This record gives sequence, C-alpha cells and structure tokens, in this order.
Amino acid sequence: MFGVILAGGSGSRLWPLSRELYPKQLLNLYAEKSLLQSTFERLNKFIPAENIISITNTKHLANVKMQLGKLSENSIIISEPISKNTAPAIALGIKYIIENNNEDETILVVPSDLLIENNENFIQTISDAQTFVDKGYIVTFGIKPNYPETGFGYIYAENNIVKSFTEKPDKQTAENYIKNNNYYWNSGIFMFKASAMVQELKQYCPEIDSIIKNIKCSNNQIPFTEFDKMPSISIDYAVMEKSKNIAMVELKSDWKDLGSWKSIYEVSPKDKNNNVFVGHVLDKDSKNSFVYASSKLVATIGLEDTVVIETEDAILACKKDKTEEVKQIYETLKQQHDDTQKVHKTVYRPWGFYTVIAEGKGFQTKIIHVNPGQQLSVQSHNYRSEHWVILSGMAKVVLEGKDHILSPGHSIDIPVKAIHSLQNPFENDLEIIEVQKGDILSEDDIIRYEDIYGRV
Amino acid sequence: MFGVILAGGSGSRLWPLSRELYPKQLLNLYAEKSLLQSTFERLNKFIPAENIISITNTKHLANVKMQLGKLSENSIIISEPISKNTAPAIALGIKYIIENNNEDETILVVPSDLLIENNENFIQTISDAQTFVDKGYIVTFGIKPNYPETGFGYIYAENNIVKSFTEKPDKQTAENYIKNNNYYWNSGIFMFKASAMVQELKQYCPEIDSIIKNIKCSNNQIPFTEFDKMPSISIDYAVMEKSKNIAMVELKSDWKDLGSWKSIYEVSPKDKNNNVFVGHVLDKDSKNSFVYASSKLVATIGLEDTVVIETEDAILACKKDKTEEVKQIYETLKQQHDDTQKVHKTVYRPWGFYTVIAEGKGFQTKIIHVNPGQQLSVQSHNYRSEHWVILSGMAKVVLEGKDHILSPGHSIDIPVKAIHSLQNPFENDLEIIEVQKGDILSEDDIIRYEDIYGRV
Repeated sequence: MFGVILAGGSGSRLWPLSRELYPKQLLNLYAEKSLLQSTFERLNKFIPAENIISITNTKHLANVKMQLGKLSENSIIISEPISKNTAPAIALGIKYIIENNNEDETILVVPSDLLIENNENFIQTISDAQTFVDKGYIVTFGIKPNYPETGFGYIYAENNIVKSFTEKPDKQTAENYIKNNNYYWNSGIFMFKASAMVQELKQYCPEIDSIIKNIKCSNNQIPFTEFDKMPSISIDYAVMEKSKNIAMVELKSDWKDLGSWKSIYEVSPKDKNNNVFVGHVLDKDSKNSFVYASSKLVATIGLEDTVVIETEDAILACKKDKTEEVKQIYETLKQQHDDTQKVHKTVYRPWGFYTVIAEGKGFQTKIIHVNPGQQLSVQSHNYRSEHWVILSGMAKVVLEGKDHILSPGHSIDIPVKAIHSLQNPFENDLEIIEVQKGDILSEDDIIRYEDIYGRV
Repeated sequence: MFGVILAGGSGSRLWPLSRELYPKQLLNLYAEKSLLQSTFERLNKFIPAENIISITNTKHLANVKMQLGKLSENSIIISEPISKNTAPAIALGIKYIIENNNEDETILVVPSDLLIENNENFIQTISDAQTFVDKGYIVTFGIKPNYPETGFGYIYAENNIVKSFTEKPDKQTAENYIKNNNYYWNSGIFMFKASAMVQELKQYCPEIDSIIKNIKCSNNQIPFTEFDKMPSISIDYAVMEKSKNIAMVELKSDWKDLGSWKSIYEVSPKDKNNNVFVGHVLDKDSKNSFVYASSKLVATIGLEDTVVIETEDAILACKKDKTEEVKQIYETLKQQHDDTQKVHKTVYRPWGFYTVIAEGKGFQTKIIHVNPGQQLSVQSHNYRSEHWVILSGMAKVVLEGKDHILSPGHSIDIPVKAIHSLQNPFENDLEIIEVQKGDILSEDDIIRYEDIYGRV
C-alpha cells in the first residue's frame, strides 16, 4: 500500500497562527508534533516510509522536509511549483507511484490537517475498505454526523455504495440529513487502486489526464509551464461527484476537522465557564471563549463567545460564530501586500530559524538559530554589511576563506561583498544576533557559492 | 496665583497602555502632548511656570522632569518618596508655597488626567472663583451633569455654597440627582488661599498638619520616614466632606474624565458603526467597539461592545461595560509580580529611552536611543559585559578614560568592570544595539561614578 499526504494547504482560516508560508499542517496545535507529522506517523504504522508521498508546494518544501526529515529520511516529498487544489496533487502522487511501481497498487489519500487520535480504529477501517478497493471501487470514508453541521460536505450512501455528494448544505437541509441514517460527513480521506483513479480521471477530467502523462515525477522537478496548465479543481468536483464507481466505508476512529478557530475551540477541553485558554492568559468572568496567547500576556474580562489569537506580529479578535470569515481578512491582507498574511516574524529554515527582532531605516536585526551540525550557505551581499554577536553555543565563521571559531560574546564584522558562511559543526545549538546595515536590506541581496563539497 | 498639579497617579484602569512606572498622565492619548503636559500648558497661560508645582512620585520623577522640562526649565517638581493619596500631596504643595511665599497666596489644585479643550472658559471660571477664594472659601468646581453617571462623585450646593458631597451613587440615586438642579459632578479641581486650607487641615486632619510642619519642601528631599507616617487619604475625605467652608463654582469649560477605556471610547470620534479604531486595525462588521493597536496589526471580526488594547507585551480584550475591572487585572498582576503591570518594554529616561528587544539565558538585548546632547552616566558593571553596535547617529564612548568616536556599523566591547559612558554630544539622535552578556543581568548591577563635571 502507498500513502499520499496532501500537504499543500494555505491554512488561511487559521490566520494569524497559520500564514501563507507557514500553513496549518505545519503547526504544533495540539502536541509536540505538527498535524503533518502526526499524519505521517499515523500512516507509517502500516505503510513503510518510502511508500508515503507528501505532496506540498515549493513555498513549504523546506519546512515539510525539515518536519518529515525528523521522522524518517526515506519518505518521498513532491513539491508543486504552483498550488492547484487537490485533483492535480492527487494525480501527481498517483503518477509518481505508477512511474516506480504498477497500476495495481492501493493508494490511501489523506489530508494533512485532520486530528485523529484513535489510530487502531483508523487502521481497522482502512483494512475494511480494502475489500471495496479490490473490487475496483474508489472508496471514500464517511463520518456518522452527530449534529447538523453546515460547514462540511455530506455523502448519501446505500449499502456502502455512494449515490450522491452534497457540498455545505443550509441549516434546514443539514437537519433533515442527520435524521436520515444514510447521510455521512465527507472525511476527505480516499482509497483506491491507482488504475481505478486513472480511469476515472481519464473519463471525467481528461485535462488532468493529458497533462500528467507528460510530467515525470520521480526526480521531483515538476515543470512549472506544464503544471500551470492544470485546472485548479478539487478531487470531489473533478471525480467523486461524477463517478458511478464510489463506495463509502464508515470511519470508525475519531475525526476532528481543524478547519477554523471555532472547530479548534469545539474539540478542545474547556474550563467550567466553557473557555479554552492557551498560554499566558489572565481572565475575569469570560464565557464560551477561546484565547490563545503565543508570546505575550493576554488579559480578558467578560468576553462571551469570542476568539482572541495573539501572535508576535498580529492579533485576531473575532466573534466565535464568524471564524469562517478569517479567510477574508487573510485575502484582504494578501491584496494589501501586508506581510502579516505571509510570514511570521520567525522564519524556519532547514538549518534552523531566524526571527526579525527589530527593523529601522538602514538596519535590521535578527536572532539566528543554527541547529547542531548545520550551516548556512556560502554567500555574499552586494548592499549590506553584517555584524554577528555570538549569544550561545559556538560558531565557525568562514570569512574570505579564513576560519574563525567564536564563542559567546565574540563578534565579527562581515563587510559588503565579503564571501562568508555561518556554520555550527558543534554539538550544541548556536544562537547569534545579526545586525544588517545598508541602504538596501532585502532577502534577495544574496549571492550563493558552492561550498568545499560543491554544494550550493 | 500658584498652581499645584497632582501628577502621582498610577493609572491602573488604563492598563496595559498605562503602567505603574508609566501612568496615564504621561501618555499621549489624544495629542502630541501628554495629559500632564497639556495640564501644565493650561495653567501656564495664567500662572508663571515658576509658580506651578507638580507633585509626583519618585518612581515617575525622571519622566515627569523630562516631559515638563520640554515646556519650561522653571517649573517646580516635588516627588513623594511613597504614594499617599491626594491630601498629603496637596499638603506638600501648600507647604512649598508657604515656605517660599506667604499664607495669602491663592492656590489652584488640578489633577493631571483631565482633558479640557476650551481653555478660555476654563480661565473665566477660575477668575469667577477668585471672589469666593478672597472671602476665605475653599472652592470646588462642579460640572453640570447631563446623564446619571454612577462613576463620579456628586456635589449638592445652594447659592454656590456646598451642602454635601456624595461618592459614586447607585443608578437610582444618580437619576434622582440629575433631576435636581442643585447637583453637580465633582471635577476634582480646587482653589483656595493657602491659609484657608491649612486651617481646615489643622481642624479636620491634624495628623497631616502635624507631620507636614516638620517637612522642608524647598530642597525637594522629602524624608521617607516622616512622609511615610502620613495617612493615605483623599482631600475629599480629609477636608471637603467635613468642612463647613466650601463654595462651588460651575466649571464653564468642557471637562472629560479619562478614567477608563470606556470613558476614552465615549469622548472619541466614532465611525458609522460607532467604532473607535486607533493604529493598524483591520475590521469586518464590528459595532460599538474600541480597538487600539499600538505596534501590531489587530484584525477584528463581528465584535460588539468590546475593547481591545494591544501593546508591545500585553493585550487586553474586555467587554466595554467592564473596563472599570481592568484595575483588578492590574492588581492581580502586581500580586503575581508580573512586570507587564509595572513597565513597558520601552523605558523612558532623561537621556532618551531603551527597549528590551530580546532576552534569554545569559543575555539581554536592548535598543538604546540617546537624544542629541545627552549622555548616560559614567558607570561600570560587576557581572556583565556589554557589546554596542551603532545603528544610526554618532556615538562618543568613553572607555577606561579613552574616547572613541563611533559611526553606524562600528562596534565596541565593554568588558566586565570597565568604567564607561555612552554619550551623544552630536546633533542627531543616536541609536545603538546593546547586547549584555553575563550570568547576572540586572538593572541593579551598576556602579555610578562622577563625570568630569562632578555629576553622578
């Protein structure tokens, strides 16, 4: 069996905790592991790492690699050069599997932003579904609804055979649905033989079929111009709602959609006033509210049905029944080219992370954290000088070919145009302050050189 | 005439914008000038600066000096070694005036946290009150109430003679009061001859009278042990509510009490949905709300009657009718020794200000801003080294007796125990990054030395 993890989402509805460049699936919302890492581990219990393919976006590749790299060196990551919804992403996963294996393989497709805790029941359900997959069905997994949610899609099935799909219904329709035992929530999880899905794509979405044929996935160099021709379409709309060949298996495990702040509130343990408080929160008399303090004190008095999310550079305060509209705030910020939509002040890299702590005319200050055994590329800058002060750990700085070993309190100047590299070949974390000076301070002002091993 | 400005308040109800060490009267809430500065300028239109005495607390002395120093070098500032409410503060002001002048002087006492814009009418009212002062009355100024506010004190007067005071009444009582033309709000402004108030203090609060006799105010070295014996009592309770010698003059100017976030909301101009937004706020569908973003983006969706105040290190989200309870959050933080009650990350000093931008084990990083022509004291530290990087402007650093002139990008190490001083004798602002390193990082680790002029 193969697993395909859909890990390209933008997570706009969980802004400001999720950002365009740090989406929901990368967040540690509930545990020490991110949703993506938890998803990988869930599949890895019954699928070997080298058979698990995560489909993400070029923008998230570094972060996805870092997170999955901590769990296994062997899993496959394919990055789309541009986001195109779920149907093209699934098509990429299938193509990779067919290129390396054969069309008879069973494929389990899972989103990377679900919370499932009962892994035994999950595995049992997957095992139950195999019968239908073996018969050539595309299997979708349904959740028995326990209230008339209007934010989910519904499946109507008779004797495990799907008769119809309905996108988010209105309240009245949802209420009728839950009185009828044949309606289920659409979990977003699918399972099929590669050949079955290829057949349906050929029939119902020939544009995808014709483009994917010309893309070679195995070297993970998806050509932009080809892929950009893909329609931006969900697998539900492209195939599931049209195919006559869909079976439904009820998901026996728990299943929590973390699509909005309201849904996260709903799945969280609450205090006696029905509040969820995370982080440094000081409350007086609030009710039914969700307050998430990531770095600062948040004091609340008398709030009702309100969500407050505090991050380093942006705060959201929102009525709890309006959290779906966070997406619109995110889109507005995107249109305004406001970076609070795009990045956190802290940016994660394969070698560690940095946080911009102060900016002003002609200068920028960062704290740079380099993980043990990691190094930044050999580089130079045309427009800025840098000044580094070691805060903790030991640094090896290569400056114009000369090595400098620096310990806490030591500092070094990196002049404009000087070729340099910051390295941490030691066993402890390295933390430095970097002060950039120059009239032009841009992440683009960087020239990269091959290191002594020929790596760029 | 003399003016006494009461500038020792803690401003707990405007937390988190006000802090124990940066109270309400020092804030620029409405204009380029702080409430204290506006108050000083209001008096200075008819009282010479050298006759205006501001009574503050040792904790605020540096900030009060800096703010008033920008307006005049001649005004008098007296700092209490410990806060003791308004009666002891007013007694100090009177004592200073008597020491330097005589008991016949007229004294106008004003709080430093009122907003009054119509200064002409204010001056006219003061002039009207002089008749009563000359007759030996203590004059209190009343505001004609236009709604049954329960948060203010009320004065009952007949033919300008006060018959009684009532502290914050209940709703029903307040409604009865405003139907009766003889009730006024207590403005907190008083006017009297020194001798008249000395007489009343002697009669109704002999503890204050007996202590103040032994304190010499002119050298602004109020002895802690003496002053600490003062009862902590308001002038209303100590004298006004007991004296038979009180006149009331109606204040003809506007008068806005800025005692809580709700009152600030009420006096602010509103948008079409009755919202007040200050700073970088992105809203969707909120109503009757007040959002103040001091440094970050605050996005709001569907809020109603809610106050959100964002500062660098603390956020308040509060139902608008509960803003009086902010005081209790402030007190809780104080009990928890949480510094977010006490200081902003930015700390103002006579020479400029600094902001702590990052802290960690064994290090602390500040941006230090030195105003032109200013310098920090000559000092050394027993437990920490410092490393300074010039960001903008020019610095003169005196290190172990040697001068260094540094320009942007230059850096210098200040070793443990080295005697040093940071100076900006130049015309532009100086901004530096300071990285402190050491096992003990405390503002108390400082030894100060006389500079070449003999100043400490």
